[in-house]
Amino acid sequence: MTASTQVKLKPGDTIGILGGGQLGRMLAMAAARLGLRCQVFSPDPDSPAFDVVMNATCAEYADVEALELFAGDVDVITYEFENVPAAAAMILAARRPVLPDRQILETTQDRLAEKDFVKRLGIGTADYADVTSAAGLRAAIARIGLPAVIKTRRFGYDGKGQAIIRDGDDPDRVWADLSTRSAILEAFIPFEREVSMIAARSADGHVECFDVTENEHRDHILKISRAPADISDALAAQARDIAESIASALNYVGVLAVEMFVVAGAGGPTLLVNEIAPRVHNSGHWTLDGASISQFEQHIRAIAGWPLGKPVRHGEVTMTNLIGDEINSYEQWLTVPGATVHLYGKGPPRPGRKMGHVTQVGTLPPKTT
Amino acid sequence: MTASTQVKLKPGDTIGILGGGQLGRMLAMAAARLGLRCQVFSPDPDSPAFDVVMNATCAEYADVEALELFAGDVDVITYEFENVPAAAAMILAARRPVLPDRQILETTQDRLAEKDFVKRLGIGTADYADVTSAAGLRAAIARIGLPAVIKTRRFGYDGKGQAIIRDGDDPDRVWADLSTRSAILEAFIPFEREVSMIAARSADGHVECFDVTENEHRDHILKISRAPADISDALAAQARDIAESIASALNYVGVLAVEMFVVAGAGGPTLLVNEIAPRVHNSGHWTLDGASISQFEQHIRAIAGWPLGKPVRHGEVTMTNLIGDEINSYEQWLTVPGATVHLYGKGPPRPGRKMGHVTQVGTLPPKTT
Repeated sequence: MTASTQVKLKPGDTIGILGGGQLGRMLAMAAARLGLRCQVFSPDPDSPAFDVVMNATCAEYADVEALELFAGDVDVITYEFENVPAAAAMILAARRPVLPDRQILETTQDRLAEKDFVKRLGIGTADYADVTSAAGLRAAIARIGLPAVIKTRRFGYDGKGQAIIRDGDDPDRVWADLSTRSAILEAFIPFEREVSMIAARSADGHVECFDVTENEHRDHILKISRAPADISDALAAQARDIAESIASALNYVGVLAVEMFVVAGAGGPTLLVNEIAPRVHNSGHWTLDGASISQFEQHIRAIAGWPLGKPVRHGEVTMTNLIGDEINSYEQWLTVPGATVHLYGKGPPRPGRKMGHVTQVGTLPPKTT
Repeated sequence: MTASTQVKLKPGDTIGILGGGQLGRMLAMAAARLGLRCQVFSPDPDSPAFDVVMNATCAEYADVEALELFAGDVDVITYEFENVPAAAAMILAARRPVLPDRQILETTQDRLAEKDFVKRLGIGTADYADVTSAAGLRAAIARIGLPAVIKTRRFGYDGKGQAIIRDGDDPDRVWADLSTRSAILEAFIPFEREVSMIAARSADGHVECFDVTENEHRDHILKISRAPADISDALAAQARDIAESIASALNYVGVLAVEMFVVAGAGGPTLLVNEIAPRVHNSGHWTLDGASISQFEQHIRAIAGWPLGKPVRHGEVTMTNLIGDEINSYEQWLTVPGATVHLYGKGPPRPGRKMGHVTQVGTLPPKTT
């Protein structure tokens, strides 16, 4: 019996959440709506998620005593970010079920391991190569060609820890600037569009997918998501199959996001997996207002051992991130009919910081996803 | 300058909420979504609203020191129930803006004052009479006829503090059973349907109404609400006019609910006001999932000095209360496609206790309310 199949929470039980950002905050609010309590663990005293729970643990992830006390206070543990330190996850998992299973982090914390995993499932990705030196980078460029994208294997997000290499760039300088000893080079994909699939999987293997979402990034940060994506039903079904086979192969419990590129092919557009996020995901925020059940609630249901919901979308949905200074436009957004405004309670804006988002539901008739 | 026009919160500011039940809980969650903090004041250590806020004050409403400390911690104060003790409201209002204005409570805490107020606005109500003795009850029956409903002037809710008097009942016994010295007798209304209007009014006098909601009670407790109510557009417009004129006459800031009866008339159905609730209301819970903005968020916006939203309904909406033991069916509800389940985190069920609710959004196209 694995951790995932042991969990069956009752209303009033407590979920421990690692990470105190907006994702943890929205997870805690979804749990509250289901009559479940949350305790948030975060080293940042200004964590936005602290505002919406009665009990919080403000401590470093290396603080063993704090981790142990936290585990003692909760019935199951989950996380809002993939970079949970392995040691912390191990300490917690010895005391309480940690869902999704912490071993999944070993795959998703490492871009190379993740790409290898996806490839082994027979799912398409960009060509890629392991790079550990400037010489290795030159060899990888020779094989993969340019333009290409070099990424650190670990701790990258929102475009951090990556760079595009174009014809004429000096690989030695690129390598030096990246300041890492382990990276991967990926072929640059001239995609038609970026899409993502938010899927929930319960401990009994049941999977529920939301509609494929189409994403626009600006400066490597998600700016707008639209559901459903403007792709064929056949391609949407493929996206669903990909997410399902990834979730099943990981024996995943909870919500995960699979980012994909839609690329032109001789026989029509095809999908390449760009990244897996073992958590709720910005491109699924539209589900809070645009569907009968949100990604946050699906995640909570999955880790609580409760049945997943079958989401019904309320119409065409657009989600717009408020990034950095854009938060200052919240008063204008409050006056837009039909717009639902989410502010994360983060204090002063910083460039590139996700401060809130706005959902708008259009007028197409609802459709069962 | 009145209290209401002084308030203009910024994200990160704190709202004080008197009352820790499910209404306070859902208000706090709506505030959190807007980046506002809440502090809940409630004498009950098991208050469900405590679960979703960082700071709570567990103290009696007569505890002056606790009230003063609470006022010092918050930027504006609101309440989830109309029976806020007048002394508490006065102490708080001397220190922070209390919205809706505490003087409104003097009208709405007293069924007689409320009926007089509605009548003065030229709005229809059931015939009624002030009753302060058994002899007075007999006289009132002689004037109003039977069946009729006797209600205590204060502290009634969910059918508590009231009784139907029918032909053959003994008025002396009814009066004795009611154990009060101030009551009103109301004509029994053979209504076609019960409806309610949830309206929000901002300090600048702007009013936004949700669609008229149709309500079914069982054992005097709301069981099902449906939006929109099955009434003509003309009658819906009348309901809106009634709510607007009540809100304006009270110089109201926040959300209020007006319960009305639809009664057959020679010239078609007409509306009689049954009750005013100076707060968010159970019959508006459908707005959480069935509209682009909820009654809770409208209330928060109004008392924060923020612009009200223009709600867009997502379809035909049904809200079903889970009362007492019905909460035990939550697992079945979790499996109903499109159903959104709300559990209030209240601990063990008691008969008649509101434990949660379920929203279902149907398939009619969205319509601007």
